[in-house]
Amino acid sequence: MIRFGACAFGLVLLLPAFPALAGDPATAIRLRDQALADPTAYGILESLTSEIGPRPAGSPAAMRARDWAVAKMTALGFTNVHVEAFAKRAWLRDAESAQIVAPTPQPLVVLGLGNSVSTPPQGITAEVVVLKTLDALKAAPDGAFKGKIVVVNQPMTRTQDESGYSAAVAARGAPSEAARTGALAYLTRSISTSTARAPHTGGTRYAGDGPKIPAGALGVPDADMLEHLAAQGPVRIHLNLQSHLVDATAWTISGDVTGSATPDQIVVVGGHIDSWDPGTGAIDDGAGVAISAAAARLIGILPRHPARTIRVVFWGSEETGGSGAAYLEAHKSELGKIVLAGESDLGSDNIYMLEMPEGALDKPQLKELPAILAPLKIMSSKTPARDGGADVEAIHRAGVPVLALHQDASRYFDYHHSADDTLAIVDPVQLRQNVAAWAATLYMVADSDVNFRAGK
Amino acid sequence: MIRFGACAFGLVLLLPAFPALAGDPATAIRLRDQALADPTAYGILESLTSEIGPRPAGSPAAMRARDWAVAKMTALGFTNVHVEAFAKRAWLRDAESAQIVAPTPQPLVVLGLGNSVSTPPQGITAEVVVLKTLDALKAAPDGAFKGKIVVVNQPMTRTQDESGYSAAVAARGAPSEAARTGALAYLTRSISTSTARAPHTGGTRYAGDGPKIPAGALGVPDADMLEHLAAQGPVRIHLNLQSHLVDATAWTISGDVTGSATPDQIVVVGGHIDSWDPGTGAIDDGAGVAISAAAARLIGILPRHPARTIRVVFWGSEETGGSGAAYLEAHKSELGKIVLAGESDLGSDNIYMLEMPEGALDKPQLKELPAILAPLKIMSSKTPARDGGADVEAIHRAGVPVLALHQDASRYFDYHHSADDTLAIVDPVQLRQNVAAWAATLYMVADSDVNFRAGK
Repeated sequence: MIRFGACAFGLVLLLPAFPALAGDPATAIRLRDQALADPTAYGILESLTSEIGPRPAGSPAAMRARDWAVAKMTALGFTNVHVEAFAKRAWLRDAESAQIVAPTPQPLVVLGLGNSVSTPPQGITAEVVVLKTLDALKAAPDGAFKGKIVVVNQPMTRTQDESGYSAAVAARGAPSEAARTGALAYLTRSISTSTARAPHTGGTRYAGDGPKIPAGALGVPDADMLEHLAAQGPVRIHLNLQSHLVDATAWTISGDVTGSATPDQIVVVGGHIDSWDPGTGAIDDGAGVAISAAAARLIGILPRHPARTIRVVFWGSEETGGSGAAYLEAHKSELGKIVLAGESDLGSDNIYMLEMPEGALDKPQLKELPAILAPLKIMSSKTPARDGGADVEAIHRAGVPVLALHQDASRYFDYHHSADDTLAIVDPVQLRQNVAAWAATLYMVADSDVNFRAGK
Repeated sequence: MIRFGACAFGLVLLLPAFPALAGDPATAIRLRDQALADPTAYGILESLTSEIGPRPAGSPAAMRARDWAVAKMTALGFTNVHVEAFAKRAWLRDAESAQIVAPTPQPLVVLGLGNSVSTPPQGITAEVVVLKTLDALKAAPDGAFKGKIVVVNQPMTRTQDESGYSAAVAARGAPSEAARTGALAYLTRSISTSTARAPHTGGTRYAGDGPKIPAGALGVPDADMLEHLAAQGPVRIHLNLQSHLVDATAWTISGDVTGSATPDQIVVVGGHIDSWDPGTGAIDDGAGVAISAAAARLIGILPRHPARTIRVVFWGSEETGGSGAAYLEAHKSELGKIVLAGESDLGSDNIYMLEMPEGALDKPQLKELPAILAPLKIMSSKTPARDGGADVEAIHRAGVPVLALHQDASRYFDYHHSADDTLAIVDPVQLRQNVAAWAATLYMVADSDVNFRAGK
């Protein structure tokens, strides 16, 4: 009140001359409705998943994905399309297999976890110890499972947000806990809400200086089967996990919709183009690539670009890490130009909630945004965005504000990191809802002068 | 009316002395409600799928399944437990793989079809021709696809009954059509309603004297991917399908709940114990084994057995054929003793409809049965049963009446014949509903003197 009181005369004079720069809600609504009928995102996703397929950082397919991205961004009309290379030590899968050998032989289906060491070439044959929770492994004394293969069979809860995953995923990072108990290898039940036999991979890690033992994931049915059998008597399995590390180059690709008034103010949005290897990386994260590119393209073909630049970024190594940090490293001298950042990386199902930096939705320039998104069944949260996605986490920590358009993850972890992450599970209607939400939001944000660093 | 009029005096005299033999509806209701709380079927199914696992006829696991069945039937209290051996030429899978090699390399997931010949040891590399329907293949001229690998990518419709499957399954049996066009190999989109990458196998066949070419199934996403790529230009794939045939023995196992009054009148019920190899054969057809055994067991522990014998049969070679014909051959001299037969072989989801031989539900002995089943949400069809299951088809053709308890197959073809056919997809509550329906129905049928051969 004091502030407004003190400035009352000045405001009256200045408002007509320098109004707050704000996007036209009618244009945002047109973009939203155009997006709901736009096949572009699905086309991008079909192209990436079928013409490139799985593309882990460090693989030959990752290089093809880089070239695909440059060509696609150029074809979509983006400018300043370029590639940023960074070095990484890449983990790549080789042959893998597992079988029950006693009491009766039966095949198992296994996937090694990223960063796992290999078994000896001939594999490991040992008795399994099946624990129902990770806590049970943590509670086991040192040396308790000497010579065994430890299996943690902790189920994951299905939730709309990532909380079910967050609660379960620690089991994927526990080979060192198993090694502490003397285990020869570590297997986790897939971090999955599915009943499918296909295991779900993902990165693991080793703690401290302890021994590194091979680590893999079993499908949900196989983990349950081992638990049932182990309750009856000794069960021996054979496990062979082979992989190798290479010094590789990874690439982040970006392209712009150049701002018409304040092009040095940049809104960064994107997805990650690398994927795990068993599927074709459709929902993780071809969808984020497709959604962000299709949304920015619709804005790019407007008669007048928004004031600010929209930069679409395809990060090149989210799954095994590194592209967020590389992006920070490459852009740290110009972070001040990035007014807002966000990433689409939780699949392709409907967005149900918008989160913005603190106070942003109270600004007059954005006050229409919740009403523009409401027909898409998207609520606007009063809680500020705290997480914009894995690849913008590093720049967020360095001061860049983030937004989040939260996707319904109820189905996501049925497929995530497994062979079932393919185009077949993508609902084109929900994919377009994502494009609509991003297009409208990016337009309103980019055609404004809101300072997201300012807070309330 | 004439009949009753003529016999009116006799009826009055005879009814108290020789009433129609009929099960007590109160006992059937108790069996039904006991079954709804009975974990026996799930336990049988868990034991079979985890302790034996996949068990194709002719495999070492099939022999273990035979021994498991004898032990399980004995433990469940059945009498006259015995094994009937029959010879069969068995098809067994060896190593298989497929990859796109051009325009850009990418792995595919493939399963050979039962009865398929092998590729040369080094595999086949050829361009694909993708057809949207089987009719398009049939319409192609002789020699039209010389040197190609033909892919039929015809989707399957999801239905509650088997009609979606029946409409789609012909594509699995079409390698000779492809051979006629000069193709080197034949691939079908999996006969599946799922989006999973895991292919669905199943038997194929060759027609006449034409060349036999290797035949396999692709998962739904891979078939769609090939269609998308082939629309853009030539796509070459490498395909390697290895298998072998063996002269094997298969076994049908049976056990009885001996009838208390007319034990030579036999009601035959069961499921098939053989399975395909990629999963653990839970819904196809461990469920039928478990449901029939658990239902008969509940009847077997009644203080008084029903008048007729209930014979539980685990057929030993449904998937690759032969056990129904072998059963007819082994029992053709005593078919007259089999008053009724049925098989549970469409998974483990709720039964929604009873079909009986013509006129059976009009008999006073069975008039309460529809009301006993109605609380299970099972309707009683006015249409006579025409199909009792693949393993009773041969005896049905030879004159044995059949009944059918139709299961909801809406989910069944998501998993059928694939790696995803495991215990994880079985809903224990629906499994018990099946046991309840079979227990009540078998009891009423077996404790009656209805002649199902008589018709209306």
